[in-house]
Amino acid sequence: MAKSDGGDACAGKRGSIGARRNPATEVAILDAAGAIVDEGGIGALTMEAVARRARAGKATVYRWWPTRGALLLAVYERQKQTDGYPDTGTLEGDMAAVLRLLFAYWKRPEGALFRHIVAAAQSDPELAEALETFRKERLASLTEVIGRTAARGELAQDLPVADMARAVMAMAWLHLLTGQLDADPVALARVLVRGWGHTA
Amino acid sequence: MAKSDGGDACAGKRGSIGARRNPATEVAILDAAGAIVDEGGIGALTMEAVARRARAGKATVYRWWPTRGALLLAVYERQKQTDGYPDTGTLEGDMAAVLRLLFAYWKRPEGALFRHIVAAAQSDPELAEALETFRKERLASLTEVIGRTAARGELAQDLPVADMARAVMAMAWLHLLTGQLDADPVALARVLVRGWGHTA
Repeated sequence: MAKSDGGDACAGKRGSIGARRNPATEVAILDAAGAIVDEGGIGALTMEAVARRARAGKATVYRWWPTRGALLLAVYERQKQTDGYPDTGTLEGDMAAVLRLLFAYWKRPEGALFRHIVAAAQSDPELAEALETFRKERLASLTEVIGRTAARGELAQDLPVADMARAVMAMAWLHLLTGQLDADPVALARVLVRGWGHTA
Repeated sequence: MAKSDGGDACAGKRGSIGARRNPATEVAILDAAGAIVDEGGIGALTMEAVARRARAGKATVYRWWPTRGALLLAVYERQKQTDGYPDTGTLEGDMAAVLRLLFAYWKRPEGALFRHIVAAAQSDPELAEALETFRKERLASLTEVIGRTAARGELAQDLPVADMARAVMAMAWLHLLTGQLDADPVALARVLVRGWGHTA
């Protein structure tokens, strides 16, 4: 692992442009992190190794991703489509789409990465914290998607939307962690959503 | 780890009484396995270490638990109450009871053990297979509990009972793996079960 902080003293290292991220440096750091994980698994990822490989300062890496967990999750999310979830017009259709998109993403190498992050988080409190922060963001997005239905006045009033989102996320995680990504998203959405709407 | 197969040659080792399990030997093996996991984590558990510590033959251990995963899961399940789930008269009440009992069990050291089994299974195919066998048994039990409601004619006809069981299991696992065992089982059961019954 070479000498500590050696990366920071390298000539020709990439710099940041202050508080704003320098896109080229961001790409270099995520490329480096992804390559390290590909080659040695998530255990091989240290902030120092990433900085050295990306020819960036360790302080730069830490400024944008405060922990290696945050960096791992950035690598995991990197290839996700950012254009959101389709609005199919029904809650069941929306939730089936959410599960279908997730299962498709998890069939890529990113699925194995996420499994390993969840696994490592079981015995790594710092990683668990990063995962929990990430998970709450995803839960909020999912709650928002379900909230579209609520805005159409079609949701049961006495069930918290966040609990609905939690149920969908739980179903997704179980299928990832038990290697069942070929399950039918429509059937899974149906058993979850039934009863959540007035019209569903 | 001493020399291989040394345990089998020990004098004074416990024996089996043929195909049927010798209860004293079973207790000794599970005690030994539990102690090894307590002291060194699940990575420390090998069939050989268990046989040596229990003064049993390795063949005996293998005969009753074909893999270390199966043995780990036997240690995990050992303290579970075997008197089944209460019949509360409603599906929502039954599922809340299932979640309440599971969360209570998972607050014991067994919860940490199960988290670590699920985690290790993500990169250990043999353990994953043992976990999957175990999980399908638990899913069948849960399906049976929900089936009691179906027998009373109160379940939606077009939703597979196994998918309902899967949703409940998923909710439970998510809460274990994210350290949220203080969640309210009644609220979680409500968001799942709504819509599954004619009368729920």
